[in-house]
Amino acid sequence: MNQQEPLSAGTTSGLPRHVRVVEVGPRDGLQAESRFIPTDTKIELVNRLVGAGVRRIEAASFVSPKWIPQMADGAAVLAGIDREAGVSYAALTPNMRGLEAALESKVDEVVIFGAASEAFSMRNINCSVTESLERFSPVARMAKAAGLRLRASISCSFGCPYQGPVSVDAVVDMVRRFRDLGCDEIDIADTIGVGTVHHVQRVVEAASREFPLEQLAGHFHDTYGQALANIVGALQVGMSMFHASVGGLGGCPYAKGATGNVATEDLLYLLDGLGIETGIDLDAIVSIGDWVSQEMDRENGARAGRALTARKARN
Amino acid sequence: MNQQEPLSAGTTSGLPRHVRVVEVGPRDGLQAESRFIPTDTKIELVNRLVGAGVRRIEAASFVSPKWIPQMADGAAVLAGIDREAGVSYAALTPNMRGLEAALESKVDEVVIFGAASEAFSMRNINCSVTESLERFSPVARMAKAAGLRLRASISCSFGCPYQGPVSVDAVVDMVRRFRDLGCDEIDIADTIGVGTVHHVQRVVEAASREFPLEQLAGHFHDTYGQALANIVGALQVGMSMFHASVGGLGGCPYAKGATGNVATEDLLYLLDGLGIETGIDLDAIVSIGDWVSQEMDRENGARAGRALTARKARN
Repeated sequence: MNQQEPLSAGTTSGLPRHVRVVEVGPRDGLQAESRFIPTDTKIELVNRLVGAGVRRIEAASFVSPKWIPQMADGAAVLAGIDREAGVSYAALTPNMRGLEAALESKVDEVVIFGAASEAFSMRNINCSVTESLERFSPVARMAKAAGLRLRASISCSFGCPYQGPVSVDAVVDMVRRFRDLGCDEIDIADTIGVGTVHHVQRVVEAASREFPLEQLAGHFHDTYGQALANIVGALQVGMSMFHASVGGLGGCPYAKGATGNVATEDLLYLLDGLGIETGIDLDAIVSIGDWVSQEMDRENGARAGRALTARKARN
Repeated sequence: MNQQEPLSAGTTSGLPRHVRVVEVGPRDGLQAESRFIPTDTKIELVNRLVGAGVRRIEAASFVSPKWIPQMADGAAVLAGIDREAGVSYAALTPNMRGLEAALESKVDEVVIFGAASEAFSMRNINCSVTESLERFSPVARMAKAAGLRLRASISCSFGCPYQGPVSVDAVVDMVRRFRDLGCDEIDIADTIGVGTVHHVQRVVEAASREFPLEQLAGHFHDTYGQALANIVGALQVGMSMFHASVGGLGGCPYAKGATGNVATEDLLYLLDGLGIETGIDLDAIVSIGDWVSQEMDRENGARAGRALTARKARN
């Protein structure tokens, strides 16, 4: 039973007709969970998500297992999954070693990153922003030479847990620098979830003057409950690609007990309601969110997921 | 430390400069909680909220204690609170008996209600919508004669747990009927949280053709995670009054484990970020949300509340 009122054709006027949802649960989500998730579960998670219609997915991270032990089995995950045509399987590659591992694992896409905050860069990866970009420069070159899609993520685009405010100019500067490294796609990430609607619109508009809007993605954490509202604001200025995490997997290492990425279920419920196509089946995602939450013995963080499951149980 | 970027003067262009927040935690929130909250705690909750700048507050419900035992102490709560000038203390009054009790308790405002769904009316209060309005007619007359502010709430304005979709026309019809009963204010309530942004905008716009927009309030449950996004949509079509519940108090009786009213903290964080005035102090509300959650031995349902408390603990 669809409780949404049928939407008239004119409803999405001004909004993108199609949105690409990048599923980050298996990487950004699991990375922030305290427990190690068995490799088989990770593999099944990726396969199920692709089965639900996901076409862009973060499947692994080739970060040193000393830093992030939860992600130590990236190669095994990528070796174990079913590869489906038309799906881009991505991995985080913080350095040349990570890139080499990613290449061996035959990923389609690699992700590099940098902060719009000097303080965050120093505290998180122990070098300045400029140094971090210098380190990524050969990674970017080699990834492009290997024919991979190259994506960059700008963390702390709306605020930093150490320095506080982050200017729009600092984000735009990072957009330019990643563009100049040859990136195909750039994520504007609200790592700690502090942004609100107009701030988001200003950053997206400013970034789009330096880089094609259709290749900019929004990555919003729901730490302050603003993620979906911010996505609405971003849609209204033409952004059409968003990251989300099934079951709201993930957390925020800078605020204990806080929520992480916006849940894929909540995002799809919004987009379905707006008549915006994603190619992803909400009901299937809800089932996956329930399943993975049970596997991890955690509460399902997706509010639309919990509500739709409860509705189904009632009927 | 304010992590929001300072907002330029032009930022709120097109949005209301001032928003009235109606705090419903002590009534709509507590009513949905399974435990009985001691009268002294309810009194302290109301007093603390008013101390934080709240000027509109639902303080009690004069419903039969057979129906809602959690609210049986309404008269004692209203007798025990400090009355502050300029604050409107409201109570739910489902019938003449409730109104008489409310008058004895010297409330400033009474709330009547009706559903935009016949099926909900039958299942919830065991009569048709028309019958429910006939019952409320003498309540409305007497409340107005006594000089009270009269508010009406239209439940299931976006969907019904029993009949499913609810048309915009059904909501507009209820707006007209409550207007004709002499209501000063009408709430458009998404009782089960199924609405999305454009649907909300359509309903608000249609309702405002029958009743002054500045006297319409949005009451959004966050069951599907859409509440704050819906409030952004409503602000964009000029709505300037919203209900919220400190600590996200409340739940949804139609979806177990689902969240209830949008949290006051999350709403204030949004409005502060947009530079919209409310007269309410967010930090004070965050403390109250932490306190009442502890008193009730429940998790704080406000994401901005949890995040701001964690930030404070870190600094």
